[in-house]
Amino acid sequence: MISSGTNQQIKDIIKLQKNARQRRKSHCFVAEGIKLVQEAGTYGKLQKIYVSQPYYQAEGPQIDTGFQGVPKEIVSESVFRQISETVTPQGILGLVSMPEYSQEEILQRENPLFLLLDDLRDPGNLGTILRTAEGAGVTAVFLNRESVDLFNPKAVRSTMGAIFRMPYLYVASLEELIREMRQRGIAVYGTWMEGSQVYDNVDYCHPCAIVIGNEANGISPGVMEQLTGRIRIPMEGKLESLNAAVAAAVVMYEGARQRRKYNYTKD
Amino acid sequence: MISSGTNQQIKDIIKLQKNARQRRKSHCFVAEGIKLVQEAGTYGKLQKIYVSQPYYQAEGPQIDTGFQGVPKEIVSESVFRQISETVTPQGILGLVSMPEYSQEEILQRENPLFLLLDDLRDPGNLGTILRTAEGAGVTAVFLNRESVDLFNPKAVRSTMGAIFRMPYLYVASLEELIREMRQRGIAVYGTWMEGSQVYDNVDYCHPCAIVIGNEANGISPGVMEQLTGRIRIPMEGKLESLNAAVAAAVVMYEGARQRRKYNYTKD
Repeated sequence: MISSGTNQQIKDIIKLQKNARQRRKSHCFVAEGIKLVQEAGTYGKLQKIYVSQPYYQAEGPQIDTGFQGVPKEIVSESVFRQISETVTPQGILGLVSMPEYSQEEILQRENPLFLLLDDLRDPGNLGTILRTAEGAGVTAVFLNRESVDLFNPKAVRSTMGAIFRMPYLYVASLEELIREMRQRGIAVYGTWMEGSQVYDNVDYCHPCAIVIGNEANGISPGVMEQLTGRIRIPMEGKLESLNAAVAAAVVMYEGARQRRKYNYTKD
Repeated sequence: MISSGTNQQIKDIIKLQKNARQRRKSHCFVAEGIKLVQEAGTYGKLQKIYVSQPYYQAEGPQIDTGFQGVPKEIVSESVFRQISETVTPQGILGLVSMPEYSQEEILQRENPLFLLLDDLRDPGNLGTILRTAEGAGVTAVFLNRESVDLFNPKAVRSTMGAIFRMPYLYVASLEELIREMRQRGIAVYGTWMEGSQVYDNVDYCHPCAIVIGNEANGISPGVMEQLTGRIRIPMEGKLESLNAAVAAAVVMYEGARQRRKYNYTKD
């Protein structure tokens, strides 16, 4: 049992929890809570699990059966509190290899519906967007490097497991990506308060992508220039904007709705 | 200038920030940050403002002009940190009277689209839902008393000002409310994973209400029994559910979309 916070493994986990650069360097991240760790085992590559002594005392047999073949470390309750990023730690976390995707393969997928995030900053929003994207049947999510890290502990938790299943790619330049998408016949629509088209007057049944901008400043001017069209979510009342995860959800699910109707008509 | 945390006004504000019962008893709450305080002045009833000494030094003239006639208290920076519920306090907060609405008047509004929240627990979700409801043109939001307090500091912030404009009502029994709504010809649809109708196959152009359930357990059995219908948001992938604020947004904006098209056809 590890009962000292100065243990090298413990120090490494804390670094992974706090530091995006460390996560990128080691291509691995931390998934916390039994549900996420189980999903990491099912859909991802679980390198090792860390279990608090009291949790292991209570759930030992289930853990040993559920994670057969996965290296395991028991740690004291106080050490677990140090490595945990939650207020009331459940007592289990996993070290997980980042899933990796090929941009070329993803861009070639049939009739894609992509989501592009331009400078999204809130980890809770990002996690929720990934979760919704899985539900809406989005093909993949692209982010520019200025966006918040998807493997931030809060983002990971907010995905509710979508992080293991939803293809994602960080790109150096969204402008370039959009140019490439458009060359491949993919229409790219950006959400903007003053967009000329209402979001549900656009056809999402054919290859297309939706861009969601930064929470405070929206889509950057360089990206704006590359778009096929600018779409607007109508707002009643005196609001300045919708929450970014909500705006993304409304447009993604309009895409899903149209595709459902379209496929139904086709059959 | 107030520079002591033991000042009675300061103690009262801290109580209001921390304690929902205190807020209900005094019918007032705290709005933090210049934008929310301004909106409180425009749309609500601002009783008093509290400004940190450094913020007043920087913004004094604007504050004096912007809040003419509103009682003002300057407090030291350290006292402001005590009364603030944000990590990096801006330096201004307002004591605001709760807006109050008449259930009878609201139920009589023409062709309403209501939102009902059954045991919603997360303040961030609640605030985001209120914000989205304003954008989608929802008539009013009803909550049962077990739901989180709308005047919780995090909920207030997440509304982005909708809290001053969106009619809301806490009710003792959602079951009874739904019975009354149905007697008045309002159709009430609950979102449920196993709902028999896809959410966009329902008509929201006529008087109707949407029920969103608790984040973990969904709609309670008693409420379920009173519904006109159970609707489902289709989900691809392996997700168990959508975030409650996202589910609410998807259905509210489908209602808004249908009403826009319907009004367009009517004209």
